Parts: sequence; C-alpha cells; structure tokens
Amino acid sequence: MSRIAVIGAGPCGLAQLHAFEQARQDGIDVGEVVCFEKQSDWGGLWNYTWRTGVDAHGDPVHGSMYRYLWSNGPKECLEFSDYTFDEHFGGPIPSFPPREVLFDYIAGRAKKSNVRQFIRFDTAVREVTFDDAAQTFTLTVESWEAAESWEGTETTLSTEVFDHVIVATGHFSTPNVPEYPGFATFPGRILHSHDFRDAVEFAGKNLLILGSSYSAEDIALQSRKYGAASVTICYRNAPMGFGWPDGISEVPALSHVEGRTAHFCDGTSRDVDAIILCTGYQHNFPFLDPELRLVTPNNLYPGGLYKGVVWTANPKLLYLGMQDQFYTFNMFDAQAFVARDVVLGRLALPDADAMAADVDAWLAKYAAVDSVEGQIDFQTDYVRDLMALTDYPDFDLDLVRQHFVTWEHDKDESITGYRDKSFASPCTGTVGPTPHTTWWDELDDSLARFLRRG
Amino acid sequence: MSRIAVIGAGPCGLAQLHAFEQARQDGIDVGEVVCFEKQSDWGGLWNYTWRTGVDAHGDPVHGSMYRYLWSNGPKECLEFSDYTFDEHFGGPIPSFPPREVLFDYIAGRAKKSNVRQFIRFDTAVREVTFDDAAQTFTLTVESWEAAESWEGTETTLSTEVFDHVIVATGHFSTPNVPEYPGFATFPGRILHSHDFRDAVEFAGKNLLILGSSYSAEDIALQSRKYGAASVTICYRNAPMGFGWPDGISEVPALSHVEGRTAHFCDGTSRDVDAIILCTGYQHNFPFLDPELRLVTPNNLYPGGLYKGVVWTANPKLLYLGMQDQFYTFNMFDAQAFVARDVVLGRLALPDADAMAADVDAWLAKYAAVDSVEGQIDFQTDYVRDLMALTDYPDFDLDLVRQHFVTWEHDKDESITGYRDKSFASPCTGTVGPTPHTTWWDELDDSLARFLRRG
Repeated sequence: MSRIAVIGAGPCGLAQLHAFEQARQDGIDVGEVVCFEKQSDWGGLWNYTWRTGVDAHGDPVHGSMYRYLWSNGPKECLEFSDYTFDEHFGGPIPSFPPREVLFDYIAGRAKKSNVRQFIRFDTAVREVTFDDAAQTFTLTVESWEAAESWEGTETTLSTEVFDHVIVATGHFSTPNVPEYPGFATFPGRILHSHDFRDAVEFAGKNLLILGSSYSAEDIALQSRKYGAASVTICYRNAPMGFGWPDGISEVPALSHVEGRTAHFCDGTSRDVDAIILCTGYQHNFPFLDPELRLVTPNNLYPGGLYKGVVWTANPKLLYLGMQDQFYTFNMFDAQAFVARDVVLGRLALPDADAMAADVDAWLAKYAAVDSVEGQIDFQTDYVRDLMALTDYPDFDLDLVRQHFVTWEHDKDESITGYRDKSFASPCTGTVGPTPHTTWWDELDDSLARFLRRG
Repeated sequence: MSRIAVIGAGPCGLAQLHAFEQARQDGIDVGEVVCFEKQSDWGGLWNYTWRTGVDAHGDPVHGSMYRYLWSNGPKECLEFSDYTFDEHFGGPIPSFPPREVLFDYIAGRAKKSNVRQFIRFDTAVREVTFDDAAQTFTLTVESWEAAESWEGTETTLSTEVFDHVIVATGHFSTPNVPEYPGFATFPGRILHSHDFRDAVEFAGKNLLILGSSYSAEDIALQSRKYGAASVTICYRNAPMGFGWPDGISEVPALSHVEGRTAHFCDGTSRDVDAIILCTGYQHNFPFLDPELRLVTPNNLYPGGLYKGVVWTANPKLLYLGMQDQFYTFNMFDAQAFVARDVVLGRLALPDADAMAADVDAWLAKYAAVDSVEGQIDFQTDYVRDLMALTDYPDFDLDLVRQHFVTWEHDKDESITGYRDKSFASPCTGTVGPTPHTTWWDELDDSLARFLRRG
C-alpha cells in the first residue's frame, strides 16, 4: 500500500486531507495518508496562540496570528467551492470576518470530511531524506506526551518510510529580522510582527513600524485602532500611500536609532517607544534534506515546482501554498487536488523537460507582470490552469478576479473603510450583508459578536 | 591525530579551549580542537542580543540576558584563579559588576590565551551521532554566510568526524513556559524571562511575575527600579520573603486570568498590564542523538555524569556546566581541566561500576542536603573534589564558601542593598571597593560608568 506523508495541518494540509478523502469516498484506493502536525490542534496560522518565541517543547512558535485580526481580503475570494460559507453558517455573513470566524469555517469542512483521524498532533517532522535506491522517503518524527505545567515533556523519536511527501508547512512562520545600528541600546521593545499578539500592549505608545506590505499596513491600523498614541511607518522603497487616519504617517527608510530616537534617511527623526519589524518571512524547511528544500523569495511563482506544486527535481515530493497570495484557501484546494491526482497516478506528469518548459513559461509570463492588476490576473490564470486538471468544483474565477480589483480600489479609497464593503460569492451568488458595526469602530473580534444580528 | 569538538563558546566552551591551550603551551599534544558557536561572537549568555524569539536564521535565540543586569553574586566567587580581576582591570573594582564588565573579563582571558582561532562562529551543530564500530562521533554542522539586511542567508551543511565531543551549550536558553487559563485573551504582553530585554518597556505598568527563583527576584527588582508602577510576584510553593521595596509584593499561586485580572489561589485578585513567566529553563539538546542526551531537572548534581562531567554511558562524551550554580566561571574551569585531562588520557577513568558508585555517592550526599547553606557546602565540596584532579591553580575555596553564606545573609538583610557590599578575592586577597553609586540608584549599566572613579 502506498504511504503518503502530509506535513502540517493548516489550511493547505487540511485541503490535502480533504482532497484524499473525497477520492476515497469515490471508491478510489488512496493508500495510507498520515498528516504530522507539531501544534496540538489544526488550523496552522489560524490556530491562535498567545505564545511567542519558542513553544512548550523549545521549538520556534509556528503562529504569527495576532488578536483582533480581521480578514484583509473579502472572504468570497477564498471560499471553498465544495463547502460554501452559506453551508457552514446557514446564511449570509459579512465579507470581512475576524480570525475566529475563518478558523471555524476551516475547521467546519475538516470536521465534515472527517479528516482529524489522519492527523498526528504534537508531532514534529525533524528530518526527511530520500533513498534513491528504494525511491522512498524516511521521516524522523518527534512526538510529545501531554506536558505537566512547569516541567519538560517526554519526547519520542521514530522513523517511518513514505512513498510521497507533501510539504504544507507554510511560509509565514520564520521571520526575516534585520538589525539596525542602535537596536542593542534602544530602551523599549523591539519585535518582529511574527511575535505581535495584542495591540493593547501598545496603547498610549509611539510606535515605529518597518515595512510596506500587508503586515505593516494591518499592524499600523490595528495598533492605532486600539490606542497607540502614534504610528510611524518607514519604508525602504516606496510608501504604501494610503489615506491613513490621523496618527499614522509614513517616512523614508530607517537609518539608525540613538536612545529612543529613530533617525530616517531623509534626515528627519522621531522619538518612539517600541519598534515593530514588519519585514516579512523566509521560506524555511530545516527538516528537509538540503537537496529537497525549496529555496525561493516570497513571490507569485517560485521556480522548480511544476504547476506550482510538484518538485520537478523529484516529483514524489510536493509543496502546497508556497506562492505569495491573493488567492488562498481555494487555491490551496486546487493545488491539493492536483497533488492528490499526481500522487495517485491519475494525473500523468510529462517528462522532466516538459515540466521545466512549463515552469519556464510561467516564469516568463510572471516576469512580464508590472502592476498589481497584472499580479491578480497572473494568479487568476494560475488557478484557472490548476482547475482544469482535476475534479475540484468550479467557481466563478472571473468574479473573484474582479473582486480583487475592486478590493484594491476600495483600499485606495479608504484604508479604514474597505472592510465594510460587501461582495458576492463566486459559488452561491450570496452577497455578504453590511456589518452591524463598521470595522474601525468594532473592537470585539469574537465570532459571537460578528454573527450577532444588528 | 585526535579530534575534539567543543559545542558552544560561552563561559564553559571558552574555559575548555583555554584548558587545552594551557596544555599545548606546556608542550602536550592536544590534537585538533574545534569549537562550534552558532552566535556571531563568543560569550554565550553574556553576549547580549536585543533579539528575541528566533535569530536571523530562524533558530531559537540562545540569549536570555537582559539590559541593566548586574551580577547577583559577588564577582570574587566566580574569579578565574589563573586570570584574576586585578590582572584584567589593573586594579580593584567593586564586587557586583554589570554584564558588560563580566563579558569584558571573560573575553579578556580568551584573548590572552588566544583561543579565538579555534572557534567557528555562525555555525550550529545540528546532529551528533556515535558510531559504535568506529568509536567516533559524526557531527552535522550548518554554517551561514554573512546576512544581507532583509534577506535570508546562504547556509551550508557538512559533516565531520570527532573522537570526543564536549557539550558546553548551557541550560538557560530553552524556557519552561506554562499556560494558565485566560492567557489567550489577556490584553497585554505575556513573556518568559528568556525574552525579557529592557525593563523600560514596563515603566508605568502593573506587572505580574510568576516564579520564586533568581529570575523572578531580579526581574521584579529591576522592573521596579526602572519605573514599573507595581510588581506582583506569585509563587507556587513558598514566597521568597525578602524585604521588598515599596511597590513589590508576593502573593500565592496564580489560578487563572480573566481579561486583565489575575486571580490567585487565595481568592484575591489584581489587575495587571503584563505577565512575565520566570518559570525556569529546560536542559535541551535537540542536536544530540537521543541516546546521548543528558535528561535532568535543574539541580546541583545531574545523574549520569562522573565528576559531573563525563557521560558515564559513553565517556567520549562530556558535558560542562550542567549543574545548577552557586559556583560558575571557576567551577567551569575546574570541570574543563578535568574534561581536558580525561580526553587526553592524563586522567584515567575508573571502570563503569566505579564511576557509577562515585555518582551514586554524590547523589546520596546531595539527597541529604536540606538547607541553602547545605547546598553551598555541597557545591564547594564538589569543586574541591574537581580541583584535586588537575593542575588548575588553587584558590581559597573556604573563603568563597564563606562569601556565599555572607551573601545570602546580605540578601536577607537588604534585597536592594546587597550589591553594595564588598568581598575579598580568593585569589589575590584584593577587596572590592565600595561602588561610587548604590545599585538601587544606579541606572547606567555601562562598563565605562562602572569603572569611573567616584
């Protein structure tokens, strides 16, 4: 019997388990699927933890999720086409839900497809090697007993052999943490957004944020919303340029810090109380043999992956969700169905040259992209290409593409108001109702509050 | 030629390199000694880093050191007998120096004995296995090129074979992090003392500290000294019971947290802004094959180590500094000289039964210890036992033992004033002068300020 290892039980890993389970219910022999999850529950980043730094076992904390996070894109753009929001919630809900709502939605499908049985929680994959002769992978896995409160935990190391490995460990867990002169003597907290948990900590403080992507944008807004005295965002290349609310401003790159004074490259300076490095993440796979590791910056088309999924150097190894993302959950689904069919031999792979040529064609296409709209179109085309390969149910990709364009426009119009807009489902046509409270005024991020009527 | 790996270039690793170098200068063939250090500089915990969580390579940060740390014991109790404070500083200095001064002292001896040449910085040991047939260790090591500011770094994995491995990686780097009900919704920062860096962050805040050992004691005092509004320390078993200054108090164990309210087991409660878990550390050696790992709680005599150093199950493996500590730098020296002489065959090991009997005798002696003074005497006897085995220069152990007893008494008399006391060197007799500023009033922890006269 074929043995398939899935590493990680976040949105990608759960999509993969779901995909296999759909095939099994159709009477197909999928072999034995084992999913390894180092956390104690599923959901990956959506499984909020208050922990920072290292976890109970001394391992780097996986989670980068913070409290009071609302989706920064319309939920209609990430909807599972085989498990709609209408099905899960029994009726329409607004378009920009907080974390707990999306976690509930992800978990809802995983429960429905009954995939928990395939997951070994509290189990980390420590090493993956490939044996050329046997054409199999050997995984060294470490699992923990439940911990006593203040004590270390019992650990067990074991090895297992698999025919295929599917890496679904995400790429927003290992922070890029730059150093600037003066950090060692800055009198206050310096943290990466990976360790950001609760904006209330910064109420009344003057914050410096480094970065110009989603984390910088959202943590700046959230910090101000929950009471930061001021937020100064500094960018390396170009400002985000949104119409920031009072108290948030953008300045050029940080040069150095002296005491609590941040000096910028334009010669200006500002006194700040804390520094948050929203400086991105690394694709990091320390558990894989170096020859099996995907090495890539964060972009829309990492090289070396046929259909963005199959490791061309060894097609028994597959990766999910390694692209930078407009599309998320539904793209992971489309990838997981492709990965499943490759593994099961239902989707024949072309020879190495043809795979390389396909990758090259996509890279060439990507190299020609020169606008945000072009990026949206590129990833839409990529998902469309995936959708044609499997039986993952269709959804209205053109509508999702249009939603992304509208959403970008909404953000330019009002960075504090875009989350109050409504979008139509590409699966059911249901339009998200207007939220009972505007996002900027809503401080309670609970599911109960979000679903309350009026 | 014999090859010896030393893992870590902190106080223990540097002591080991120094010990080998002393022998080499005496004309002894010490073989090839290679020290692996994952940080970019030596000093271990004494090499302060502003980083928390993971380092530039995604590895857990080693450092637990915080700013404004002054030694919590007299420097005379840790003095190198072959490199005195008088020699390093050219004259007497007060007995309780801040971190930078001790770092400078450690580095001073390492420079004098010219051991930097043996250290491979930015190099982490990932795996150590032992080959029974060859009777050698294979180390897998990962090294990094200098990092570009916001980018990932090039990494190289390689393997090397050694005849002996000496583990000097410390045991104050992997935190024990307990969870209490309500942590996930506490509106403020929760951190382990491992991630504590700058007390100024907590100025004006009401802090809750969990724990009743050195970290809890020192971080409570330091936080209040640098402006915390209040510090509440909660203990599991018994209070530390010092005469705390105004604004610091002790309460029984934490039961749970509701919002920002901490509830204690005696039914009382307090509103707090941040929670610091001073809940200790784990002995953690994920890079060692499980069969080579020392498994122990933090105490004065971990089992399985002959003379507290030699791994009885495989005497080619040695550990330094794995004991809980009254004695530090000079005990590490005494251990390192023993380790060196065992490795070089100058100190013959008895057979396995005799080693086990020796360990058992020490464990029995330790089991009978029932007071702090008894602990001091126990570790003094242990160091005395080590000192008899090698040519590490004698120092006045009875005086150091008396210093520890006096120091404990001083702490009971004044927890804010004990660092203003003076002690005599067990090597030179020099008495530390009274500091120019009392510790409680001194906010500047720099070497320059400490060494300034009057």
